[in-house]
Amino acid sequence: MTTATIQQGNVIGKAQLLKHWQGHRNLTRRVIEAFPEKELFDFSVGGMRPFSQLAIELLSIGGPALKAIASRENTPYSEEGITATTKQELLALWDTATSTINEYFSQIPEEDFSQTFNLFGQYEFPIYENVLYFIDNEIHHRGQGYVYLRALGIQPPFFWER
Amino acid sequence: MTTATIQQGNVIGKAQLLKHWQGHRNLTRRVIEAFPEKELFDFSVGGMRPFSQLAIELLSIGGPALKAIASRENTPYSEEGITATTKQELLALWDTATSTINEYFSQIPEEDFSQTFNLFGQYEFPIYENVLYFIDNEIHHRGQGYVYLRALGIQPPFFWER
Repeated sequence: MTTATIQQGNVIGKAQLLKHWQGHRNLTRRVIEAFPEKELFDFSVGGMRPFSQLAIELLSIGGPALKAIASRENTPYSEEGITATTKQELLALWDTATSTINEYFSQIPEEDFSQTFNLFGQYEFPIYENVLYFIDNEIHHRGQGYVYLRALGIQPPFFWER
Repeated sequence: MTTATIQQGNVIGKAQLLKHWQGHRNLTRRVIEAFPEKELFDFSVGGMRPFSQLAIELLSIGGPALKAIASRENTPYSEEGITATTKQELLALWDTATSTINEYFSQIPEEDFSQTFNLFGQYEFPIYENVLYFIDNEIHHRGQGYVYLRALGIQPPFFWER
């Protein structure tokens, strides 16, 4: 490892980044659980997508994106084949993605995170930026889910619980 | 710098973390701008706080928290004295905070980010986790602002623009 690499900074490591993401995914799982079965699939505010559909987007990114990064595949983004019609099915997909993410994240060497990759043949950024984007996008949509829950009169899980 | 420190991982550096945060802050600024003057201060969904109040929370964290971390002060969290009654005033506070954050962030040595600090005398975590929390909390509340804008029939800024 060169001095140049060290000087890039060392404030967040690979294991810390994964723990951070899975902590957020754990909270998102509890937001899915907090929705009543029906409203998970048909309630929204302002013409937006219901929370189940936002969760399908997150599932179409997390596992597939990590697999694509680990193997440097330019597979396009797709939600096809990622479907759930009940809360139980959605939670099962969520738990499978947890393992998929752990598996492929561990295959990405630490030094690769600063390398550029054209994710989904569309988003050409350093890998660490792509991973931060997945987390940011999840927090963003989950924040929207909090508003849906509040509009339904339901207390969401505490934001700081992971 | 010891080998042990290096082995903690090196996927996100100090400069990258600040750039990431300020990119998000830039987007949040555009969300504030997107609100009509009146609705910025009095519109919300589900009994939540209006977006101006969420922005005041973010302003009560960002600059004050960075100053507290840089000087290791246990000042309690407070929104007192951070007020705005117009969009212009709120944006001016936002821009001042941008400089404050840059100033104090630069004073925190890279090796300190893994050190534990009891922020606001209440949140005892490694400094890098505290900074990630500020960013997460901002994305979370801004996501809620997106729903308010959609409910008002206003197109929010693109999430990926920073």
